[in-house]
This record gives sequence, structure tokens and C-alpha cells, in this order.
Amino acid sequence: MKKKERIESVSEEPGTELKRIKKSPVKILPLGGLDRIGMNCTLFEYEDEIIVVDAGIAFPQEDMPGVDVIVPDFSYLEENREKVRALILTHGHEDHIGAVPYLLSKVMCDVYGTRLTLGIVEGKLDEFDLDTDGHLYEVSAGETVVFRHFEVEFIHVNHSMPDSAALCIRTPHGTVIMTGDFKIDHTPIGTTPIDLPRFAELGREGVRLLMADSTNVERPGYTPSDGTLTHSFDRIFAETSKRIIFSTFASNVHRIQQILDASDKWGRKVAVTGRSMQNVITAAYQLGYLDIPDGVMIDITDAKHFRPKELTILTTGTQGEPMSALHRMAFGSHSQISLGPEDLVILSASCIPGNERFVNRIINELYRKNVSVITDKTDDVHVSGHACREELKLMHSIICAENFVPVHGEYRHLAQHAQLAKDLGMTSSHILLPEIGRFILLDAAGIHQGSQVEMYPVMIDSGIGNGLQTAVLTERRKLAETGIIAAFCCLDVEREIIVRPELITKGFVFEKDNAELIRYLTDRAEDAVVECLEDGETDERVFEKRMKDALSSAAYEKTKRKPIIVTKMSFLSD
Amino acid sequence: MKKKERIESVSEEPGTELKRIKKSPVKILPLGGLDRIGMNCTLFEYEDEIIVVDAGIAFPQEDMPGVDVIVPDFSYLEENREKVRALILTHGHEDHIGAVPYLLSKVMCDVYGTRLTLGIVEGKLDEFDLDTDGHLYEVSAGETVVFRHFEVEFIHVNHSMPDSAALCIRTPHGTVIMTGDFKIDHTPIGTTPIDLPRFAELGREGVRLLMADSTNVERPGYTPSDGTLTHSFDRIFAETSKRIIFSTFASNVHRIQQILDASDKWGRKVAVTGRSMQNVITAAYQLGYLDIPDGVMIDITDAKHFRPKELTILTTGTQGEPMSALHRMAFGSHSQISLGPEDLVILSASCIPGNERFVNRIINELYRKNVSVITDKTDDVHVSGHACREELKLMHSIICAENFVPVHGEYRHLAQHAQLAKDLGMTSSHILLPEIGRFILLDAAGIHQGSQVEMYPVMIDSGIGNGLQTAVLTERRKLAETGIIAAFCCLDVEREIIVRPELITKGFVFEKDNAELIRYLTDRAEDAVVECLEDGETDERVFEKRMKDALSSAAYEKTKRKPIIVTKMSFLSD
Repeated sequence: MKKKERIESVSEEPGTELKRIKKSPVKILPLGGLDRIGMNCTLFEYEDEIIVVDAGIAFPQEDMPGVDVIVPDFSYLEENREKVRALILTHGHEDHIGAVPYLLSKVMCDVYGTRLTLGIVEGKLDEFDLDTDGHLYEVSAGETVVFRHFEVEFIHVNHSMPDSAALCIRTPHGTVIMTGDFKIDHTPIGTTPIDLPRFAELGREGVRLLMADSTNVERPGYTPSDGTLTHSFDRIFAETSKRIIFSTFASNVHRIQQILDASDKWGRKVAVTGRSMQNVITAAYQLGYLDIPDGVMIDITDAKHFRPKELTILTTGTQGEPMSALHRMAFGSHSQISLGPEDLVILSASCIPGNERFVNRIINELYRKNVSVITDKTDDVHVSGHACREELKLMHSIICAENFVPVHGEYRHLAQHAQLAKDLGMTSSHILLPEIGRFILLDAAGIHQGSQVEMYPVMIDSGIGNGLQTAVLTERRKLAETGIIAAFCCLDVEREIIVRPELITKGFVFEKDNAELIRYLTDRAEDAVVECLEDGETDERVFEKRMKDALSSAAYEKTKRKPIIVTKMSFLSD
Repeated sequence: MKKKERIESVSEEPGTELKRIKKSPVKILPLGGLDRIGMNCTLFEYEDEIIVVDAGIAFPQEDMPGVDVIVPDFSYLEENREKVRALILTHGHEDHIGAVPYLLSKVMCDVYGTRLTLGIVEGKLDEFDLDTDGHLYEVSAGETVVFRHFEVEFIHVNHSMPDSAALCIRTPHGTVIMTGDFKIDHTPIGTTPIDLPRFAELGREGVRLLMADSTNVERPGYTPSDGTLTHSFDRIFAETSKRIIFSTFASNVHRIQQILDASDKWGRKVAVTGRSMQNVITAAYQLGYLDIPDGVMIDITDAKHFRPKELTILTTGTQGEPMSALHRMAFGSHSQISLGPEDLVILSASCIPGNERFVNRIINELYRKNVSVITDKTDDVHVSGHACREELKLMHSIICAENFVPVHGEYRHLAQHAQLAKDLGMTSSHILLPEIGRFILLDAAGIHQGSQVEMYPVMIDSGIGNGLQTAVLTERRKLAETGIIAAFCCLDVEREIIVRPELITKGFVFEKDNAELIRYLTDRAEDAVVECLEDGETDERVFEKRMKDALSSAAYEKTKRKPIIVTKMSFLSD
């Protein structure tokens, strides 16, 4: 990946020549990232220039059947494509980079990020075979990218993924700091502590606006350091002679490093199963983010040659994903590994709300197989990647920004983060709660709510290339609730019924047990046709409408349900 | 409700004449209650007699669209209807009594329970208009019901519902104790502490088998007393001048009592909204389980006449139920109450796993309206109704049963409860992990796994009277995932196509945006018909099959999806 001359060292005291122009406000527009499900994406606009920070996906909820992912509504960027100068990425998590291919396929632009982040993005771009030659620019923490109106400095932070960065964005109306996802870790794994001194410097320089991670605002105190887990793992590895199946997020490279080291120390080989875990380890190793002790790695197919106490199996599936290797191992459908009393499964992650049911299924199954289980509830095997209240207060205090916009959380998190800022002495007029599609205006006077842009997150059903219409989703939900009844009927030239209305139902009732009900409905449909004939109707759509109404009310009368009903009437012509 | 002569006082030292007959084992069969979703129901069988303990429902999970409730498979009871002597109820929660009408409508028998439990059951029976005259028998804690082979004594326990009982079941093979749902509360609200002395007595007498609640086995220590909440509520009421909207489970009569008292003490009137809450308060008051301070209750329609600090609104909706009064208040669709900065909402319940999404939606909406919110995470406003580890240990120790079967929990809870019993010195051979539909045999030697009975929990779609077939449910899920394509075609007597295959789709793609796709699919369907004609096919079903196959592969080719496809071919005859 080549570097670009307009990336300068920060030492050159940037931003000076920008101080002059201060007419129109800087416009900040969140395209997502303001709910639990992620999809972080924020654009900064000034006159003829737009830069975009992150382009994440969200994962569908239970009431979005058949939806694979949700991506931000990029319409505004498409309408202003000539302004779009760059996409800046803070780190490589799906909720920050997952939508990059979707964005670039609509609006191609330069992409800036740290090495690991870009490494992961490149993998995605390949899947979409998008030609982005010469568009990816690697930036290191401490470096600044200079655009016409904006300058973006990358600042090193700690998070559950290496190479994560906060952004210092110098604008015509002064400095904006976006923390990105962060925690304050004085003893991190495989990296250095967050660059607090730089945040302090910028604070002293003067920061107009802080936009900070609100994920853990409800949690008191500090998030424990990744380093603390080293001791837990050491203890667990020392105490057990069972085979260890260690499950975590593939992207948590620090965690993986700790398990490689612990296994090496305690004379265990490590076998990896699960495609995503395999990919990340390969990528992280090649890019130099993973230090694999000599000879510790073995192929999963060789696992059988090792005794339980000689082996660690590294895998994903902490959220109970039915396709994950852990799920397959738990339910005995894994090709190489089957679990039993000689196994210890460690779930090194917290359960994302909504996934409990799936995770519990796996845990129950493991207990059925007499497998030992350790989770974050029963032992210290996981720490969060986000800052808790005291860390947030520290950030606010050293940056002491003039204005504050909480980001990255559900509304209740944003509201509590705003309250935290007030508790620290900031006045309400300097705090603004962001909304998706609502402009935030930054000018000499401060921050203000701007106009609203119509914005509908796009649901991707990878089968159906284009975004899935809400109408279709509603149909799917209704189909699932009540099922469907289809009725066909045919009239000949003399307007005689030659094909009586015949019903086909799906997901409505079990036809075999409900022959009488089906017959009743069929008769009602035919009655409707006969009535139409008596009324001398000549429009097929009238026949269809009245068959539909008849079926609908008959179905409701008998079942108190309103299934979807489709009717088709055909007139034969000579 | 009349009492029955065969209810005796326990003082008469019962069970003596049973000591002789000890041939065949006592058979214990769990019909449910061994997973998160509840549905407690266990039968005890000896020779020609069966008694059933509890008949609960389970609530459907996200992957059961259109299902209202799930009830146990009562087939075994139907096949042995002449043996079924009685249904014994431990308490009035839905997961213990919800299926009573379903059971009685299949197998009518006598029902025994405490006053409040029967009061609630009667309400349900009315909805189903089942004639149960002379079948309901009220039993008080301390009383024993005598059957031919079994004697059942009710023992007072503490739980999140008044009038809850454990059962001491004397069988031809000795005493079985079922704790039912319980906690140990030395300072309960509106009732006395659990009757520990009686459990101790029975323990000394000798208990063959203990079947105990495993819900909170993963929680260390003790469940706090309901009494502790009195102080929290007192503090909260003292500190706020806002209108209080207090939300809890309607069945938690103790909690409701505390709020009535706190409101009375702090000069607030109480208005109730929500049908279920209204019903429970009326029933509990009439049966003497609720002590309503004079003049504290007002009608919700009069709420507007009171200032915020003069009013408490009592409601349900703690699980985010979209139809609940709290949901309607939060989203501004409640007829009398609209919420704002002058309101404080207290969610006095824990969030049942799987409901987080719905609860969070409400909390976010409340924050949007600047409503203050207190949950069990932010303050002491809720305690569990189930015993934690130390209470379970206490129960095991004073009963010191010969054998143990953990009940009421997911498999991992049962397994951990079994481990707890081992930690207390019980040997594995005396512990048995129950399975739905698998007999547990109790005889002179101990407990053993018995034979397996085919058992399928019945999903009730109240529209479709009978149990919902899994086939239909699968169809519904598939419909939701991929949608449906319906195609039909018509041939005249000369086997000419007079109605070209026409497609109707639902939940598949947005037809307006996919005209080309639809056209492509239609052509493929017509090709199939033409090929059939060329092959001289004469069977309508062959045409339908081949249209279906053609559409299926064409749809997959274009969308990588496999929608449900229904085809209909009609041949016209003279």
C-alpha cells in the first residue's frame, strides 16, 4: 500500500492557514451509530468538501426475517458525490467498516485507515470485487491527512481490536475530536497505552467539539485492563488438565495473543477452527499484529494426536451463532472435534443482548455432554473494549471541549452521557443529542441543531441485490404471523365458471386437519364469484377484490386470523 | 368454594396405613418445566392412580411466529384418563397454572390449590367457559389431601406471589417433597416467613426424594427479602416530587401492597391502568390478599386532577410488551396519561432474557421524552422470588433427603444444582437429572431412569383451535425468510395455453423494482409448461411439479434464495 505526500507529520503544526475562512458552519451529519445495533457513519461537510468517518453495518433483529445486514442510507452522499473527498476509518470492527464496500460501490473515494484496519477492509473489498486501486491510504497514529478544509490526525487508543484510532479533525471552525471506540488501558496487550498526552495537548490547544463513545456510560468505575486477564488465563491453564476450547471474537487479536502465550507457557499446542478466526489470525500475523510462538500452532486435523492437557482449540461462536465452529462442536456436527468430560470450554466474551437464547442453548448442550464451562459470569475471562464512567470523565476533563455530542450508544446511553457532561460542569446549551439524519452545525457561536435529511437505513437481503423494501419486510412478517391463502378462478367466454376457485394455503392451517375449514373458505370464494356474475361485473380485478374480501372475512370469522390473501381471476377470450 | 371431607388436618399423623403396600415403583413423569420458558407439569403415578402437579404454559420464542402459548403434551394423561385423580397447584403463576383449562378440557378432574391460586384459575376457566362445578377444592397451608395411594400436604413458602405452597407428597415408597417456586424470606410482605420448621420436621421423619427449584442456582448468597424494598421505595418517594409511574408484574401482589402503602404514607393517590393489573388488584382485594388504605385509590380518569407529587400510577409492561399500558404511555398512545419531564418511571422487575430489545425500546423512548427512569440495574427496586445458592443449601440441609431431582430450570441450572447437592455430600447414584417425557422411578432401592414417552409440547395458535403442527410453523418461518411465489396456468381442451403462467409474489422482492426478474421467472415457468406439452404430459400434477422446479431454480439462480413456490395448472374440459 503506497503512502501519499499529503500525509504529513503532525509536528509541522497544521491548521494554521485554515484559521482565516470562517463563514458558513461546519455541517456534521450522523448516518447511523445511534442505536444498539451499530452502523457507525458520520459525515463532515464544509462548502465543497465532505469527509466521511467510518461506514459500519448493523445486524438485523429478530423482526427482520431474511435480512443479512443493514447499511446506512448513503443517498445524501450520492447526491453530493462530487463533494465526497475521503472515507476515514477509526478501526476494523464490522459496525465501523462493514458497509465500506456498499459505500464505495455507490461513491468511490479515497479511504484512510491504519494498517490492520485497511488489511481487513481489503479482504472485504475482494469479496465484492470492487476495483479500489490507488484509493487505499495507510495512516499511522500521529500522522495527519490534509484536505482542503479539513485536516484529520489519527490518535492511538486502546480497544478490543489493535490499531484503533481516535480522530482529531481540524475544521474551519476549530478542532473536533472523535474518540471512536476506546478504553483507557495502562497495561494493554501487544500495544502501548492510549495516547492520553496527545489528548491533553489538544485540550490545551483548545477543542471546539468532543464526540465520545457512550457504550459503557451506565457502568461505574473503570474497565479492567486486558492485562488483568493474563493472570486469570494463567491460573485457569495451571489448574486444568482438560483440553481447552477457547472461544472469543475473531477480531480480538489481543485476546488471541494471550491464549497463544498461555498455551505456549503451559506446553499446549493451539489448533484453530472456524473460517473467520483462521482469516484474522493469518491477516494479523502477516501484518505483524500477532506474535506466534515457534511451533505452537498445529493443524486442526492433527488435534487427535494430542492428549487433552496438550491442546488448546481456538474458535469463535461466543454469541451462539448456529453456523459457528463452537456450535457445531457442542452439537456434535463438527468434522474433527467432538466434546466430552475431558473438555473445558471458555466463553471469553459478553453476551450481546438478544443472543442469550442462542448462547444458553450451547451452554445447556455442553452441560449435557458433561463439558466444563467457564463464562464471563463465572470467572474473569473477559473485559470490555469500551470506557466506563470514570474513564469517560477523565477524557472529558483532559480535553475540556467547548461543546459535546455523545455518540455510539442507544438513546438512553447518549442521554446519560450528556448528563455526565453536565455533572462535569458543562452547560446544556453546549451539549447536543444527535439524531440519525439530523445535521449538527458547528460555527463560531457553538453547536446547533440543523435541518433533517430523510434517511432510511437500507436492509440488505444479499439475494436481492438492491435494498429490501420495508413493504416486503412487512409482508414477510405478516406471512410468518398468519400464513397465506391463494385462490385461482377461471371463466370461459360465456362467463361460465370453468375452474372453480381453488385454494392453496401455506403457513395458515394444517390442511389435512382442516378440510372442513378449507371447504368452507372455498365455498365463500365461489359465492363471491357468483355474486359478481349476477351483478354483471366485467372487470377481473373486481372479481379478485371480492373473492379476496370474502376469503378474508370468512378466514377471520373461523380463525380470528387475517392471513395474506392473493386471488387471481382469468377470463378466457376466443 | 366448598371444602371436602377428605381434606384432613395434618396433626392426625397420616400415611400410616400406606406403609404396607410396596410392590411396583412410584412413577414420576415431567411433562415440562425443564427449560427457561416454563410450562411446569409433573405427574405422579402408582398403580391405578395418577395425580398431576401444576399445569403451566410456556411463552413462544421469536422463532414461533403466530404462536400464542405452548402447553404440555397431555396425551399420556388422555390415554390414562380413568387413572387421573387430581390436579394439585403450587401457586398462581402462568408457568404453573396457565394450561389448567387445556388440561381440564381434555381430562376433567378435581383441582386442589390455595385460595388465591384457585381464584386466579377460576378467572381463566370462565374465559374458556369450562364447567368445573364441584371440581375446585380450596386447601390451606398445613392441610393434607388424601387419595388412595398418595397424600399431599401443602406447606407455606415465600415467593413473588402470595399463597404459594411447597408439596409434601406421601407415596407408597415414602415421602417426596416438591419445593415449588420458593425463596426464604424472614421479613416478607403481607404474609409469614416460609414454614422452615415443617420442612425440618419432615426431614427428621425421613424424606425419600427432594425435587427443588433450580432457577437461581447460578446466583451466590441469598435473595434479598421483599421487606428490604420498603426502605428503597420510602427513600425514592421521599426524594421525588415527580409523578411516579410504577411498573411491575400484575401477579406481584406483595410489591403492589408496598406501593399502595408508600403512596398512602407520602400523600399520593394511586391510579391503576392496564387490564391485567386491574383484574389482579380486584381479585387479590376481594380474596383478602391486598390491604387498600382508605381513599388512596382513584380512577385513572381522575388522574388529571392531581399534581405530579400527589399521584402514583400503577401499571404493568416491565417486559416491554407492545400492548401494555406502559408501552402506550411511553409512545404517547395512552388515552389518559402522557409522560414528560415531570414523570418518574420505576421498572420494578428484572428483564427476562430475550426481552431486552423491547424493554430498551421503551427506556430509550422515555429518555427521549425527558422522563426519569429507575430500573433494577440503577437502584434497589426489585428482588427475585427464587432462592439463591445459600438458600438452596439450607433447604437441602434441613430436609436431608435420600435422593434428589433438580427441577425448574434450564439444563445448565439442573446440572449445577446437582453439583451443589454433591458438594453437600450426596453421591451421584442418588441424584437424577430429569428429562421431559422420561419416567423417574422411585422404589425401595432408590431412584432410577425409567422409559421414555414420546412427547411434543403443543403450540397453541388461538385462532386455529387445535395444536399448531410443526409443519405449519416451518412453513411460516420459511415464508418469513424468503417469501412466496404463486403461479398458475390454464390449458383449454385443445391443450393450448389460454392463461399464460402468471406470478403473484409476497415477501419475495419488491415487484415494482424487479419487473425484469419477475418477467424472467414467468418465462421460465412458461418454458416448463411448453416442455410438458412437447413431452405429451397429461397429468396436471406433472405440469405443476415442473413449473415449480423451473421457478425454484430460476429464483435461486437470480437471488440465491429459495422462496416457497405454489403452482396450479388447470385443464379445461368440454
